[in-house]
Amino acid sequence: MTTPSPAMGEPGLDITVRTAAGGGQTLLSAFDAALLGAGVANFNLVRLSSVIPRSSRVRLSHDPVPGAHGDRLFCVWAAGYAEHPGETAWAGLGWVRDEAGNGLFVEHDGGSEESVLEQIHLSLDDLVTGRGGGYGPAETIVVSAHHEHRPACALAIAAYQVMPWEVA
Amino acid sequence: MTTPSPAMGEPGLDITVRTAAGGGQTLLSAFDAALLGAGVANFNLVRLSSVIPRSSRVRLSHDPVPGAHGDRLFCVWAAGYAEHPGETAWAGLGWVRDEAGNGLFVEHDGGSEESVLEQIHLSLDDLVTGRGGGYGPAETIVVSAHHEHRPACALAIAAYQVMPWEVA
Amino acid sequence: MTTPSPAMGEPGLDITVRTAAGGGQTLLSAFDAALLGAGVANFNLVRLSSVIPRSSRVRLSHDPVPGAHGDRLFCVWAAGYAEHPGETAWAGLGWVRDEAGNGLFVEHDGGSEESVLEQIHLSLDDLVTGRGGGYGPAETIVVSAHHEHRPACALAIAAYQVMPWEVA
Repeated sequence: MTTPSPAMGEPGLDITVRTAAGGGQTLLSAFDAALLGAGVANFNLVRLSSVIPRSSRVRLSHDPVPGAHGDRLFCVWAAGYAEHPGETAWAGLGWVRDEAGNGLFVEHDGGSEESVLEQIHLSLDDLVTGRGGGYGPAETIVVSAHHEHRPACALAIAAYQVMPWEVA
Repeated sequence: MTTPSPAMGEPGLDITVRTAAGGGQTLLSAFDAALLGAGVANFNLVRLSSVIPRSSRVRLSHDPVPGAHGDRLFCVWAAGYAEHPGETAWAGLGWVRDEAGNGLFVEHDGGSEESVLEQIHLSLDDLVTGRGGGYGPAETIVVSAHHEHRPACALAIAAYQVMPWEVA
Repeated sequence: MTTPSPAMGEPGLDITVRTAAGGGQTLLSAFDAALLGAGVANFNLVRLSSVIPRSSRVRLSHDPVPGAHGDRLFCVWAAGYAEHPGETAWAGLGWVRDEAGNGLFVEHDGGSEESVLEQIHLSLDDLVTGRGGGYGPAETIVVSAHHEHRPACALAIAAYQVMPWEVA
């Protein structure tokens, strides 16, 4: 499911798509546990709405993102929460790219895999149609998390770029 | 409704205020359709809470914001969603500036134009009073979106600045 | 409750933790009133999820954050809203640091001081356990806001860094 960049000679972002599930005593710590599983827990996340720059590489990875503890990490994510006993939550990302490499992410969460995948495909269909078409097939990734004695978070996240703080 | 900068000789941001309505099969794609109408759909939006820097120009525009596909766009927005058949959603921005050019945006959404405008004026009144007054009259812009066979999004957005990614 | 940096010779962020309560005719203006009380109302806030960089200083302050009107301010916050007559809302931050100075914030809000403190401690316990331990004792700060004739906001905020806009 790796998408090679259509413009490999150009410098660009190395976007890594990651999934994980995590549990915790609170929704916040369940989210953090999922971030740990995805290799991005020690960054300050800044959320983006969800366009893939032209010369980016998009690939799957679960290696920890390199960077200093507390750096900013710009990223796109979907998170689903299983808050109640027995509940299962799903989250997923979908993406398409055109021939020049311009791309789009969509993020959805819900109570079933089918629901999340359906929303991803409906959204991508609309986004592509709205731009006049010309995109390749959709790629998708989904993940689930089950409430076992404690809340759980399903996380699908695309890590764009780490930026350090500006310190004198 | 264009607000000329009170400090026109100084360099500053060129903030463009935009409105649009869009429909889609999901709330996400309805939001994207509104972003397309507003000329900002191909950026990674980073949301701000909503202060106008002193030397900024604030003007209405619907021309596409210049920049590369996938660059970050810092912006302020209000979005209202018409999720159910027959429903109409409203969204709006209001803003004021003082003599030096310092300004403030507020963002509201709701089920009627009157409700959104009332919230905008109540919020701006409080923000101005809390800072000891001295601001000019409020400017406002509102937009509606109607659920016609599919969900719709009303979007009022102020685009501050595009920032490219840092690639080697 | 000031946390001296464990690596005081290194350059790092000067993170200031602030609390305030504010009231307004709308939830937005109540939030703004709390931002005014906390000394951060005239910035464009960009929200972070909530890691303390290694060489940061973390200290309590209510002096206005230095910077130009409308600059971006990267920060972490919890906000609780008392929307209905007689209601009281609470918000709080908790944080821990390890011997090297790496730290973590958590943010919670709720209807009572006990509830917010319990959530903070449960979250921090999970975050520390998930990273294999080695962190010092938790520090916490909470604040309340009461609905008196109008909505109120309780705000606990950690201000990381001001970044000016890039103007030509």
